[in-house]
Amino acid sequence: MSPAIPRATVARLPRYLRFLEEVAPKRSTTSSDDIAEGTGVTAAQVRKDLSHLGTYGTRGVGYDAAALRDLIARALGLGEDLKVVLVGAGNLGTALANYGGFGERGFEIAAVYDRDPQRIGTAIGDLEVRDVELLSGDAAEEGFAIGIIATPSGVAQDVADLLVENGVRTILNFAPRMVRVPEGSVVRQVDLAIELQILAYYRDRAR
Amino acid sequence: MSPAIPRATVARLPRYLRFLEEVAPKRSTTSSDDIAEGTGVTAAQVRKDLSHLGTYGTRGVGYDAAALRDLIARALGLGEDLKVVLVGAGNLGTALANYGGFGERGFEIAAVYDRDPQRIGTAIGDLEVRDVELLSGDAAEEGFAIGIIATPSGVAQDVADLLVENGVRTILNFAPRMVRVPEGSVVRQVDLAIELQILAYYRDRAR
Repeated sequence: MSPAIPRATVARLPRYLRFLEEVAPKRSTTSSDDIAEGTGVTAAQVRKDLSHLGTYGTRGVGYDAAALRDLIARALGLGEDLKVVLVGAGNLGTALANYGGFGERGFEIAAVYDRDPQRIGTAIGDLEVRDVELLSGDAAEEGFAIGIIATPSGVAQDVADLLVENGVRTILNFAPRMVRVPEGSVVRQVDLAIELQILAYYRDRAR
Repeated sequence: MSPAIPRATVARLPRYLRFLEEVAPKRSTTSSDDIAEGTGVTAAQVRKDLSHLGTYGTRGVGYDAAALRDLIARALGLGEDLKVVLVGAGNLGTALANYGGFGERGFEIAAVYDRDPQRIGTAIGDLEVRDVELLSGDAAEEGFAIGIIATPSGVAQDVADLLVENGVRTILNFAPRMVRVPEGSVVRQVDLAIELQILAYYRDRAR
């Protein structure tokens, strides 16, 4: 396995990737200045981040756009479709299962679970909501790469524990409460209020 | 108006704020090391970010936790409740309107709009979904601080235009398509696939 990339760099790579996916079909080369402008990061930061992937561009030419796109995708472990298991089939879970942005980026929502008998057996797109009691058995067969928690806050920690116990060690948590996972697992907390707080700052300046 | 804070700093301040809200009731002081550990940022970055607010802590003592919390909240323009207008009353919009994390952080979803006659007039929590045609008239009276776009991608740009025309110049876009706003307005793009791409990196390492 290649050496670990700093956490903040990993968090920026998908934004560079998105930019390069737009640019690569149109232009053969790109520069750190282009990437910086397209992603709202400084050019120096872009160069430093990309140096962690072992690429430095060519002075006066920049980076090969398609090669850089592929390099970042590989560094992130993208390429094959990754199976995502979603727990919680309420409004948020349903919205996420139907979210157009996942499938086209290589993430397949492979299964949806809930514990509410009213929801179990109902359809979300092509998926049937399954009883969360079945998750353990299914996980062994399915090989879920990533788990998404879209449950109420009160049960989010239990769901995180269940996922980790069943080998799903990378988790995205939408419940507005921090969950803890053991060493060797990773959880990212999606905090939608933080986005609004950032915007609150600009509200006073957007005039 | 105080001088502008760098964009990346603004994006980190809500995370410091969240940490301080947890810590301040328990401890009178905190350090950049504490904040760093609680938020996954380096201590040097924390100190640099806070220096933009004009605070440097006291050597050997750190920061007054409650004062720092209040300073960050003020810098972000929080304090009074901010009215949020939500456009799109599908699954995602409904989930956002019901999201527990907004109200407690000072954001009030003040109105929800849709253009689908099937949805107009239905209730989401205490709100009645209104015809998007009424948004212009309402905006003048209500003073919406922030707009949220939770529509399908195809109409996201139209909704952004409508919001900006009606004075809502800070926008959070959940539709998986970039929208453009004129100079003087700010849009933040929530890209849920990016979160999954970041996790994809850790999947190979979470063992």
